[in-house]
Amino acid sequence: MFRKKRAKQKPDATAKQLMGIVGEENVLYLKGDLLSYECDGYTLERGIPRAVVFVRNTQHVSDVVKQLNELEIPYIARGAGTGLSGGATPRGGEVIISLVRMKRLLDLDLENRQAVVEPGYINLKLTQSISDKGYYYAPDPSSQYACTIGGNVAENSGGAHCLKYGVTTNHILGLEVVLPSGEIIEIGNSGVPDQPGYDLLGILTGSEGTLGIVTKITVNILKNPEGKKTGLAYFDDIDDASQAVSDIIATGIIPAALEMMDEIAIEGVEASAYPVGHPSDIAAFLLIEVDGIQEGIDDQIEDILTVCKSNHVRDVKVAKDEAERSMWWANRKMGFGAMGAISPDYLVQDGVIPRTRLPEVLAHISAISRKYELRIANIFHAGDGNLHPLILFDASVPGESDRASKAGSECLQVCADVGGSITGEHGVGIEKSAEMRFIFTDEEMAAQTDIRHVFNPDDLLNPGKLFPEPGRCVEVKRDEKKVSV
Amino acid sequence: MFRKKRAKQKPDATAKQLMGIVGEENVLYLKGDLLSYECDGYTLERGIPRAVVFVRNTQHVSDVVKQLNELEIPYIARGAGTGLSGGATPRGGEVIISLVRMKRLLDLDLENRQAVVEPGYINLKLTQSISDKGYYYAPDPSSQYACTIGGNVAENSGGAHCLKYGVTTNHILGLEVVLPSGEIIEIGNSGVPDQPGYDLLGILTGSEGTLGIVTKITVNILKNPEGKKTGLAYFDDIDDASQAVSDIIATGIIPAALEMMDEIAIEGVEASAYPVGHPSDIAAFLLIEVDGIQEGIDDQIEDILTVCKSNHVRDVKVAKDEAERSMWWANRKMGFGAMGAISPDYLVQDGVIPRTRLPEVLAHISAISRKYELRIANIFHAGDGNLHPLILFDASVPGESDRASKAGSECLQVCADVGGSITGEHGVGIEKSAEMRFIFTDEEMAAQTDIRHVFNPDDLLNPGKLFPEPGRCVEVKRDEKKVSV
Repeated sequence: MFRKKRAKQKPDATAKQLMGIVGEENVLYLKGDLLSYECDGYTLERGIPRAVVFVRNTQHVSDVVKQLNELEIPYIARGAGTGLSGGATPRGGEVIISLVRMKRLLDLDLENRQAVVEPGYINLKLTQSISDKGYYYAPDPSSQYACTIGGNVAENSGGAHCLKYGVTTNHILGLEVVLPSGEIIEIGNSGVPDQPGYDLLGILTGSEGTLGIVTKITVNILKNPEGKKTGLAYFDDIDDASQAVSDIIATGIIPAALEMMDEIAIEGVEASAYPVGHPSDIAAFLLIEVDGIQEGIDDQIEDILTVCKSNHVRDVKVAKDEAERSMWWANRKMGFGAMGAISPDYLVQDGVIPRTRLPEVLAHISAISRKYELRIANIFHAGDGNLHPLILFDASVPGESDRASKAGSECLQVCADVGGSITGEHGVGIEKSAEMRFIFTDEEMAAQTDIRHVFNPDDLLNPGKLFPEPGRCVEVKRDEKKVSV
Repeated sequence: MFRKKRAKQKPDATAKQLMGIVGEENVLYLKGDLLSYECDGYTLERGIPRAVVFVRNTQHVSDVVKQLNELEIPYIARGAGTGLSGGATPRGGEVIISLVRMKRLLDLDLENRQAVVEPGYINLKLTQSISDKGYYYAPDPSSQYACTIGGNVAENSGGAHCLKYGVTTNHILGLEVVLPSGEIIEIGNSGVPDQPGYDLLGILTGSEGTLGIVTKITVNILKNPEGKKTGLAYFDDIDDASQAVSDIIATGIIPAALEMMDEIAIEGVEASAYPVGHPSDIAAFLLIEVDGIQEGIDDQIEDILTVCKSNHVRDVKVAKDEAERSMWWANRKMGFGAMGAISPDYLVQDGVIPRTRLPEVLAHISAISRKYELRIANIFHAGDGNLHPLILFDASVPGESDRASKAGSECLQVCADVGGSITGEHGVGIEKSAEMRFIFTDEEMAAQTDIRHVFNPDDLLNPGKLFPEPGRCVEVKRDEKKVSV
């Protein structure tokens, strides 16, 4: 009965035109189908798209974009939809261009340490497909089993190992991009680290789908390190853990990862599918990994644990084998999701601060928690100064969602006030465009929105993201005559 | 007599207005004084500026820029003038804004591994001022004793150690920039590696002085490696040396530096002020450096030299102490200048190729050498695939300059043809703007020139650089109505 009712809904003129380009089977237009696309991993704002079109190749993307330009219909590129700031969330009425069916590994050149993938190729699959040959792809967001490399490029995704190995932008060698004009351009070049001219590779990477649609990606792949050592350090006082982080960095050793969790976060992961038996009464732990050539890494992890000992650590241990190491990492990577085990709802925030300001910022976050009467767990890529306050709330209690949202924004204000940033790796998206004001002046914002206007003059590509819009929160004014092209 | 004659020349209205901003003692306007500013380290094209103004602070830069905008007089920012592609060379009539008197180290924050410098601060001085505390600044162009960090930002300068440590853009955390509008903006942020929004830090770095004038730079500083080992490997066949480079990279060890010189280059450095006694009959040598924690580096250099041995090396050696290591490096860094000892004139080229194409590209360069009857020496940052063909000629022989220039351009065409690039670290400047066509399509060029127009709408800041201009070589056409801002 329900099926029959749905079957009656006819594609509108737009959907039909899109079908003309990509084929009937590659366009969704039924209301029920569209509901799955009303948000990404950030669920506090939602909108229903007009249609979803699954492109199969670059020409499809170009043709669809040109068609939508003609119709003046806005559009959004989407990968796996694991983003955490609403970068792929419609405001309502946009066409979603889904890249998930462009998912091939196009080329693998081990000699030059490069791979070419389509944007819908899943992050983890790349490492899986080359690990037997001794290689891996470095950026490892916690969602790497699901997220696409195209999405990683859009968000300039990081991960636990970006302290040593950098974020996505440090691993992208070239892009094929469909511009909002429908033109197809190549940026970057095989085997050449730095191209002349302006760094378009850098500006496209992390542009959150507002400058172009990436259709091909050349990435750098790395040789597996010869050895790895992973340690845990338990602290009774989170300030001691914070000081240990600064002291570790000061030794000159760059750990492959240096992660921290506070007691509420630990409560969560211990209640998750991957408990490891962390003590329940500690204030924080550090999860530390070093890698590199075999000689020396035992000394490195020992040196780091010695630094922990000089900061009143309660206990330290080193993973005895790969199984234990994997368990520790599975537990850590459950971090966000694990909050579901101890709270009906949670809001992930993503701020960055100078590492040395950690104790002070934690005290502020504690005060915010008391002010809004909401528990806040803290998970950090501590080595990078990237904190993820997880604000726990119950959306069914009137007013709690709103309080959570305000508490999140205040956490970001604290980060901005100490000279930090409002996002480390999750992006600005639809969620934090107003908070861009915390860190940018009018002139600084204008320098950026001017760039968007050049690439995306009619603002049809992913409108309403990344920057505050006229009428939304703060108006970005710009004398149009002044910037002539 | 001559002095008296010069003294009669009066400052024109422009010079007087500039003096009103920066003081009389900070403006040069006498013809004799201006001659020193007719080119930078690329001497084949020259032009006389209208005046040179020495700014002392950011407000000076902003005020001077606003004044020149009002007068519609073009201007160029200049550091030490060591650039190798004419990025600071006037076409004639521009005002040079010299940053050399903004040369202070403004802040040193060892705990957060950062330093803040003014643009005229000399590269090597930074390392010298922190080396006793165990730190250094990584980018090390051969001109580092003279070049400024502001100039390094403009050109995104590299150096022998960028294989492992990256180029300038990888070490810049924040910039203060005066835009061509005179507005002052801050880009990047203390202690925060990646800012939200578009990567303005990336786009400004390497923009060759066409988007803004950098007035303050926050750089990342590194802890000195615990140990270093430096090796030399002599080859009878340059193809064996090339294959060794690929094989070394394939081991997974990333050397701190992996340099190559061919026999003509060796002839030059052995005739220079720093000969080291390299055999005169070898085809090429590799200069290899590894660094890191003490444990393991002996093994690393041994592993690398073993790779050389499996590629028919004639001889290998490891520097026995710091004195020998320094001598090898001084000899290598003399590379370009040393050509003066074996040729009246020389032209440095700067191409990049995928490492694996090295033998094929060398064969092409050899053919170009025969075709133009000019000797070509080759110095390479081999690990990066960055080659510097040095074309030897005698400007006093009619036609030789022209042949050298053509041979240089053909070398770049070869690099482009194998999927490489026309510049690795010297920039495009005034020299290679026509060659941008070797690697960019109309659409790709337009995406870049559009960005220039946004920042630099009246094209008063460093006109005629980086992109081919209408009327110069190839016209970049763009439908103005299409790109509305």
